[in-house]
Amino acid sequence: MSQATGPSPRTRVVRESERGVYDRETVYRILDEGFICHVGFVVDGQPFVIPTSYGRSGDNLYIHGSAASRMLRNLDRGIPVCITVTLLDGLVLARSIFNHSMNYRSVVILGTASVVQDPAEKLEALHTLSEHILRGRWTESRQPNEKELKATSALRVPIEEFSAKVRQGPPIDDEEDYSFRTWAGVVPLEMVARAPIPDERCRHDIPVPQYAASYSRQRR
Amino acid sequence: MSQATGPSPRTRVVRESERGVYDRETVYRILDEGFICHVGFVVDGQPFVIPTSYGRSGDNLYIHGSAASRMLRNLDRGIPVCITVTLLDGLVLARSIFNHSMNYRSVVILGTASVVQDPAEKLEALHTLSEHILRGRWTESRQPNEKELKATSALRVPIEEFSAKVRQGPPIDDEEDYSFRTWAGVVPLEMVARAPIPDERCRHDIPVPQYAASYSRQRR
Repeated sequence: MSQATGPSPRTRVVRESERGVYDRETVYRILDEGFICHVGFVVDGQPFVIPTSYGRSGDNLYIHGSAASRMLRNLDRGIPVCITVTLLDGLVLARSIFNHSMNYRSVVILGTASVVQDPAEKLEALHTLSEHILRGRWTESRQPNEKELKATSALRVPIEEFSAKVRQGPPIDDEEDYSFRTWAGVVPLEMVARAPIPDERCRHDIPVPQYAASYSRQRR
Repeated sequence: MSQATGPSPRTRVVRESERGVYDRETVYRILDEGFICHVGFVVDGQPFVIPTSYGRSGDNLYIHGSAASRMLRNLDRGIPVCITVTLLDGLVLARSIFNHSMNYRSVVILGTASVVQDPAEKLEALHTLSEHILRGRWTESRQPNEKELKATSALRVPIEEFSAKVRQGPPIDDEEDYSFRTWAGVVPLEMVARAPIPDERCRHDIPVPQYAASYSRQRR
């Protein structure tokens, strides 16, 4: 369940268990580099997996959305969720097809989402989300008004039952395959930001802010 | 359910319904640009969401994995799955916090995964997966042997009940916010490949293959 006690039976990495990581520091580093999660929930026995943005504050993950969405309508009933964050780092080209792999870091969190009811905590949750994605943007934007806050729900998921799975490094081939005549190695993959595109109606005398001009998720 | 009949009640985009897309051509273009999906399934009422690679062949999606994994152990019982593919295209910076958004293209497929039993179809499924991720790699690698094929399961998910959700373009602000003095626009995001890193034990006389040297998912 936590750093001290190790994974729960539900979050223990079963396959390639040497890739399992359970310490909060590593898990939080992955969560802080990412900002898109995939939220899993169940409606009438059918799983749904929906991508959404998130922010972390301490031992809580916050997601938000319209109260009108299918996800929010279901999650605010306090049903179990699985939140998964995946960072893709590269393609791993082995000599054998079988040993091809990916370099990645992923986190799985099991828990229950609760709607943030307290207005001050809700505003703080939205602030957390905004700053997690684009630090510095909040204060430069037009602040949310009451109507907008009403139309938005913030959900809190405590980071209690979790695990990470990490694979990095070169291909690992069977010993007898190292003489096989094919190129082997890693193609690194990275999410990069391109030059910001100003909105046509953006005033020309407003410079591109630094957080947009040099956007990067790299925290390593 | 399909191009002709529109979305099912389960795949209809509820929130921001103008972003819903239901034609196979658009959906397949998204599926063909991506290669990592998030698979959702339910065990004892608890949803799990696991990232994995996939390949598309016609109207089927194939995923694979070790028969020993939690996902495969559960999926081969023929339980309902949700497969979600998300391509992130940019951060959308509006004048108001409330109208901040992301540019993205995502696909949700609901269905049931079946284990590919026929050995020829299984090999074909693994070939599809490999070529989907890295076209040209299969023939240059050491082919799978019987033991490896036994340790690998391939699963087929028919693409029957699906929808996509797409947001592109500049921020859309409330009319009265356009005069608000802050930069507004889009920070484009893109997954890029860096220069391949040869394995230390890679023979120096083997050149980096073109599919690794100029790797790109761009299909647009």
